[in-house]
Amino acid sequence: MADAASREFFTTRTVAEALAGFRPGRRTRTETVPLHLALRRVPGQPVTAPHSLPGFPRSTVDGYAVRAADTYGVSEGLPGYLTVTGAVRMGAAPEDAVAEGGAVAMPTGGVIPPGADAVVMIEYTAEVMPGTIEVVRPVAPGEGVVRADEDARPGDEIVGSGRPLRPQDLGMLAAAGVTSVTVHAKPVVTIFSTGDEVVPADTRELKPGQVRDATAAALAALVADAGGEPVFGGIMPDDPGALETALRDALPASDVIVISAGSSVGARDETASAVGRLGEPGIWCHGLAIKPGKPTLLADCGGVPVIGLPGNPLSALVVFRLVGVPLLRRVGGCLTPPPEPTTRARLARQVPSAAGRLDVVQVRLCDGSAEPIFGHSALLSVLAGADGYLIVPEAATGVAAGAEVDVVLYQ
Amino acid sequence: MADAASREFFTTRTVAEALAGFRPGRRTRTETVPLHLALRRVPGQPVTAPHSLPGFPRSTVDGYAVRAADTYGVSEGLPGYLTVTGAVRMGAAPEDAVAEGGAVAMPTGGVIPPGADAVVMIEYTAEVMPGTIEVVRPVAPGEGVVRADEDARPGDEIVGSGRPLRPQDLGMLAAAGVTSVTVHAKPVVTIFSTGDEVVPADTRELKPGQVRDATAAALAALVADAGGEPVFGGIMPDDPGALETALRDALPASDVIVISAGSSVGARDETASAVGRLGEPGIWCHGLAIKPGKPTLLADCGGVPVIGLPGNPLSALVVFRLVGVPLLRRVGGCLTPPPEPTTRARLARQVPSAAGRLDVVQVRLCDGSAEPIFGHSALLSVLAGADGYLIVPEAATGVAAGAEVDVVLYQ
Repeated sequence: MADAASREFFTTRTVAEALAGFRPGRRTRTETVPLHLALRRVPGQPVTAPHSLPGFPRSTVDGYAVRAADTYGVSEGLPGYLTVTGAVRMGAAPEDAVAEGGAVAMPTGGVIPPGADAVVMIEYTAEVMPGTIEVVRPVAPGEGVVRADEDARPGDEIVGSGRPLRPQDLGMLAAAGVTSVTVHAKPVVTIFSTGDEVVPADTRELKPGQVRDATAAALAALVADAGGEPVFGGIMPDDPGALETALRDALPASDVIVISAGSSVGARDETASAVGRLGEPGIWCHGLAIKPGKPTLLADCGGVPVIGLPGNPLSALVVFRLVGVPLLRRVGGCLTPPPEPTTRARLARQVPSAAGRLDVVQVRLCDGSAEPIFGHSALLSVLAGADGYLIVPEAATGVAAGAEVDVVLYQ
Repeated sequence: MADAASREFFTTRTVAEALAGFRPGRRTRTETVPLHLALRRVPGQPVTAPHSLPGFPRSTVDGYAVRAADTYGVSEGLPGYLTVTGAVRMGAAPEDAVAEGGAVAMPTGGVIPPGADAVVMIEYTAEVMPGTIEVVRPVAPGEGVVRADEDARPGDEIVGSGRPLRPQDLGMLAAAGVTSVTVHAKPVVTIFSTGDEVVPADTRELKPGQVRDATAAALAALVADAGGEPVFGGIMPDDPGALETALRDALPASDVIVISAGSSVGARDETASAVGRLGEPGIWCHGLAIKPGKPTLLADCGGVPVIGLPGNPLSALVVFRLVGVPLLRRVGGCLTPPPEPTTRARLARQVPSAAGRLDVVQVRLCDGSAEPIFGHSALLSVLAGADGYLIVPEAATGVAAGAEVDVVLYQ
């Protein structure tokens, strides 16, 4: 029976090898989307400022635009006196320049008039008679002023390529008048479920031995979270011919193909055969040194990554998160993925592990303590009850109770 | 001139006071959405399993269903012999029971036949002649089996209320055949921009003194990220009457109202007046002990939170993230917000701060070092260039260079 096991995992790789070495060439084309639909989308090229921002020297305070030199040496005891020659209105060009000994009233955000090089805050002035203010504190040139190109110079890169756009990036683009962005198309991820026992989630009454398709719904959500567009390929019976036909049909319109490959050795072998005939260079590994998730298949079918996931929902979702999501992001042009939340916690009890295998342990957090959730990888409740997971790396043979561990938190 | 300042911030509060004490009563109604649209939505009540899951005792391995007692004492040297009376097919009821001395072939995931209480892995068996296997390792009752109710018992809570649904929660719901969920409606957040200088982001050519509306685009993205539905109320001129009318019109259809309140003291006073007349109990604070973001207005207008943000985009976005997002989540029924990514970093240079004020410092990360980005709060590039921010709490008077700090990372 050792034959079945060796046939099954004929090219086992580590997760690190898969992340570094399995790199199908597929990239999505780019498309142009309006700014209000661009959140989390990945620019295909940097965007530069078409002109300087804010575009004019702006006051940062309420007060008076002045020539800084006119305020030198003034103090509470020895105020300076300036002649107010006008007032700037918000959103309008200044009507008056500031001459020597003069001042123009400024609202925060107004245009600094010609001749002025600083703004005295209103708190340090007083109108001593109509048209004349006293100033009790000196200002340096540039004080109270944002330069015309201080937010951006023409040609400055205001968003980079390869990183999902964040709220503040959309703000910066709006400020520059850039109301559409060229971004990578969302990778189309076709999701197949396989297995004679699997029925759609909306099946009311199950017949004996049937289970509803839980993995597809969760995978679709992970795909959407990672910036992809999930498409359901359907539930395939344990029939390699039918699966191969369905995969061939899906390949042209897919950027990534994901298959819940069935739980039994026979079902997994049949998936591997179907995937192996799909395109060159073909199967890259069959078997990952990870628990749960060993029976994972990775193939490059003409540049399209095909991921055969284990049949157990927990294993499938663990592997897709660790291996599938980075692949999907790369296909979608994302070179700088957003950070994941993590926390330090004290491990509540010992976690055993085998050397040479990466273990993913689901944990519940309570008062800074991480309680491992042990349970078979057939149980989705293990994942639904978890707040996050910790990784026991290949070199370790377990983690002792009380050890400080890094927990990746589910969002 | 001290008058203007004291009038402006007549009730300053700390951020902690605002988070704990400002709690308008508005909550969104619930609605029912299909599972594939339920990611990140917030259930209004817990969902329980309608029946046990997986619903039948399942094999976790490929092998033979047996009576455990029939394997006691067997070993490599002294195998046991069992009569194979049939085979279970995936997704089908077992056709044969397992009698004493019998065995039924099992695929992983198949239904354990009546009479059997364990599954021997195929690796520990061999077919010695047609219809007879030898078994070389004993199994305990329950070995190789997931119980019929091991993933969920009928009535078990499979998702809780008040926490956004995660991918694995959707999987659990699908497994239970729950294909629609009652969730809180997304809070409608009406966003107003104010200021005579503010023009729409799609304005091609700016006139002197004009700036494009950057804040609204970024706020809308923050709202969407936090599970809300942004609605643009429009750009209002500096005219308190017009603003009040627009606010009154927006109030019935809004769960939260957000106003970029203008940068100048005059504009802010006018916003406060308009908001103050909008509904009871009215203004809760005018001024937050935060930098940037002091000129923040919080009001409860008949249960609807109204947030008057500073006019500077950076300040507005900082305050909305710290104070607005938690408010918005609460209005939408979210009691357990998803975790935010953070990292520990070494502060590259000293950050000064005033006691009694919470400082939010934007930082760029490089090789474990956090470089503070100093720059006026009128500059959106400070935020666009940041990888995250650190908080200097009220009690501190700054953070020394080289100190270890927690940085909240932008996603």
